Amino acid sequence: MNRSLILYFTGKLMHIEALLLLPPLIVSAIYRENCFFSILTTIGIAFFLGHFIMWAAKPKDKTIYAREGFIMVALSWLTFSAMGALPFVISGEIPNYIDAFFETVSGFTTTGASILTDIEAMSHGLLFWRSFTHWVGGMGILVFIVALLPGISDRSIHILKAEMPGPIMGKLVPRLKDTAKILYLIYLGLTVIEIVLLLLGDMNLFESIVHTFGTAGTGGFGIKADSIASYSPYSQWVITVFMLIFGLNFNVYYFILCKRFREAGKITEAWVFLGIVAVSTAIITVNTLSMYSGFGESLRYGAFQVATIISTTGYATTNFDLWPSLSKSILLVLMFMGSCANSTAGGLKISRVIILFKSIKAELHKMIHPRSVTSVKYEGKTLDDGTLNGVRNYFALYMIIFFTTFLVISFEPFSMETNFTAVVACFNNIGPGFAGVGPTSNFADYSSFSKVILSFAMLFGRLEIYPMLLAFAPATWKNTKTKIIR
Amino acid sequence: MNRSLILYFTGKLMHIEALLLLPPLIVSAIYRENCFFSILTTIGIAFFLGHFIMWAAKPKDKTIYAREGFIMVALSWLTFSAMGALPFVISGEIPNYIDAFFETVSGFTTTGASILTDIEAMSHGLLFWRSFTHWVGGMGILVFIVALLPGISDRSIHILKAEMPGPIMGKLVPRLKDTAKILYLIYLGLTVIEIVLLLLGDMNLFESIVHTFGTAGTGGFGIKADSIASYSPYSQWVITVFMLIFGLNFNVYYFILCKRFREAGKITEAWVFLGIVAVSTAIITVNTLSMYSGFGESLRYGAFQVATIISTTGYATTNFDLWPSLSKSILLVLMFMGSCANSTAGGLKISRVIILFKSIKAELHKMIHPRSVTSVKYEGKTLDDGTLNGVRNYFALYMIIFFTTFLVISFEPFSMETNFTAVVACFNNIGPGFAGVGPTSNFADYSSFSKVILSFAMLFGRLEIYPMLLAFAPATWKNTKTKIIR
Repeated sequence: MNRSLILYFTGKLMHIEALLLLPPLIVSAIYRENCFFSILTTIGIAFFLGHFIMWAAKPKDKTIYAREGFIMVALSWLTFSAMGALPFVISGEIPNYIDAFFETVSGFTTTGASILTDIEAMSHGLLFWRSFTHWVGGMGILVFIVALLPGISDRSIHILKAEMPGPIMGKLVPRLKDTAKILYLIYLGLTVIEIVLLLLGDMNLFESIVHTFGTAGTGGFGIKADSIASYSPYSQWVITVFMLIFGLNFNVYYFILCKRFREAGKITEAWVFLGIVAVSTAIITVNTLSMYSGFGESLRYGAFQVATIISTTGYATTNFDLWPSLSKSILLVLMFMGSCANSTAGGLKISRVIILFKSIKAELHKMIHPRSVTSVKYEGKTLDDGTLNGVRNYFALYMIIFFTTFLVISFEPFSMETNFTAVVACFNNIGPGFAGVGPTSNFADYSSFSKVILSFAMLFGRLEIYPMLLAFAPATWKNTKTKIIR
Repeated sequence: MNRSLILYFTGKLMHIEALLLLPPLIVSAIYRENCFFSILTTIGIAFFLGHFIMWAAKPKDKTIYAREGFIMVALSWLTFSAMGALPFVISGEIPNYIDAFFETVSGFTTTGASILTDIEAMSHGLLFWRSFTHWVGGMGILVFIVALLPGISDRSIHILKAEMPGPIMGKLVPRLKDTAKILYLIYLGLTVIEIVLLLLGDMNLFESIVHTFGTAGTGGFGIKADSIASYSPYSQWVITVFMLIFGLNFNVYYFILCKRFREAGKITEAWVFLGIVAVSTAIITVNTLSMYSGFGESLRYGAFQVATIISTTGYATTNFDLWPSLSKSILLVLMFMGSCANSTAGGLKISRVIILFKSIKAELHKMIHPRSVTSVKYEGKTLDDGTLNGVRNYFALYMIIFFTTFLVISFEPFSMETNFTAVVACFNNIGPGFAGVGPTSNFADYSSFSKVILSFAMLFGRLEIYPMLLAFAPATWKNTKTKIIR
């Protein structure tokens, strides 16, 4: 265990966060808000504390093994959240540190669950920071570092593996750094396009930017108590489409950019994703028809809510908690499923669901034809046993952690549905659930203990469990012999 | 595909059901009830129809392959339920055939979910039949046939494999027929003991027998509107203990009978089961303390409800739907988990949960020590990849079928919690759920369509999915080349 390197890395991360705090600093300066000083103070703390840690750590050895990778990923997200919560506390806008931590974890993990009861009283600077954490967390803190910082070699694949969502680590191009750069360029491009499109509607520049951050990261933090409901149908449709765009497998955009349209069209996960969206929207539109004035409105509400839930964004344009059971049940299932791998969305990921289906199909085939040899193919490649078992074990672990978290917070004096969907919403990085944590409610009433538990649920969900689990397992920290992997 | 053998077998099953209808016929004769004629008519139909089918089928070949085994299991349960529903309809006590089918499936699968709104108006004969289906279904219809009928060879392992719950088919003794006989003898012995113990309390002979049937099969059909609530604390404690006894792995009793106490004490699943029961009861007792008059009463209600849910029986002594969220949440998790393999209980089975945990532990170990070789041991034996993948795939399939069924019945105009726990209660063969299907409610208000869907959910749950799924898969029926397996 290379403890000094991990420590050194944590210090470096604080410097990066100090840099990331500059845009909200500028915003608060433009609006001449008091939160300027709280952001500046945090930058100062991050800079000097980071410096001190890097000075104290002095790593001799720069080798990273698999377990160091997991720990670094978990630690970096915890550090970013712990530090990123400071401006809220120092400014007094969220006086309680645990509340601020919950809000910041919710930001970075792109969950969008909030403890704010009067969001419209917040300063522009901190609203910007809050939404900016979505944008940073969406594509990944470490993907960002790998893409931009010099001197990081391809060995960092351990880190990226631990941070990138989905069952199979996809390298678009041979060099990892280039993959990360390409992903960030696509991300940036789509972000700019959405900002421009929103500006053409009824949003001003500030609103366009923060809502784009929330969409791009599939986060869901807004700036109004009613989320997106009071914006024009045009803005709602733009956000609907972009939530789906950011929920799609980014490989699709890469292939389209390279004009490899055939390959783009062959990504099964993308088609399944769009199919589920279409069918869910159709059923919900019909099911809620009597609640709205005509088909057009019902379709708009249906499509928006399906997009927001399946992409795990969490914006809302209507209180879907009041919908009939059928529509709510569809949303509940979509909450678990989530979107594509290699997107910014959370949840179980559609690719995993497809692989599980194929794995079961193979098992059934083997039952009828016991001596046949079966193999599971996905996206044109035969999956090896390691990948298959990885997906199956992940699913079991996902359910075990889900039910454990549910049991831990169920002492809260809320209904079972509230506690159940609170965990669904946090663990899958969605934001709102049903009942007491529905789209018109928030997480303010939960105890500090549960807020910490739910913050960890968000981190477990965003990092797909293993990094967090391994970072907290004593066995990982033991100095036993390990083999080098590349 | 040996269609004529399957048909012949179905005919034979009808004869067996005609025999099983004799005890309720005698009961109805004793009480001089009109349902006597409806039972007699059913016996006649079963006898002649069975005879005709056997005459028409005339199988030349008696070889059973794996897929014939699955189909025979699925068909035999469907035949038993379809035929067993007739006395209710003919007597007019449950006029609607779909209702009667639901009630009979619920009986044979030991679910205990009911559509009866006035149970105390039912005749003794049919109440006896209803509870007797629990007893027959508990240990398994086909285990019964293998144990008792002459001329059935060890080749029938395909059939038993498909019917016996749990991840690993356990043969206690080399000859399968002997295993089945031993299991049935233990089952019978425990049944007699419980009847005697209940007779010592405030139940008469009829009540003692039907409630023992419901306990032994972990079914849950009672004869009173308030289930077991109006019986004495003594009777409630007897039933509590026996629900746990029938939820335990039957291998424990076999080893105890053979005086192999060491082996009996080494069954991990049994200890985990008892541990979960103890912890759950302790938490619920404390959590509900303020609702009852003192610790003793709270413990009695807590222990009974934990035993009834984890053993998937479904009796009730209090309306646990009114309990605080924490207690309800514990029950919800226990509903999914179920009891031990090789018991009469439903649910996912604790052995599967243990194996999943171990499988995940091995995966985590491999992540920290990538070049190490890991293996998963259970009950002293190293599990091969086939068994491990079987458990992992089963879990995924279980969840997929659960959520699919939930979506299919969610058009019903009940709350999401009602529909959700209705599927939990039927699929895991429990009986009551929460809210609209709580312990004081029933399934009468569901549409005929949903009753059929829920009936199939019960069959899928009781037969552990595969036989039902394969019997309805077109691929199973295709006459492709298959290899013989033994």
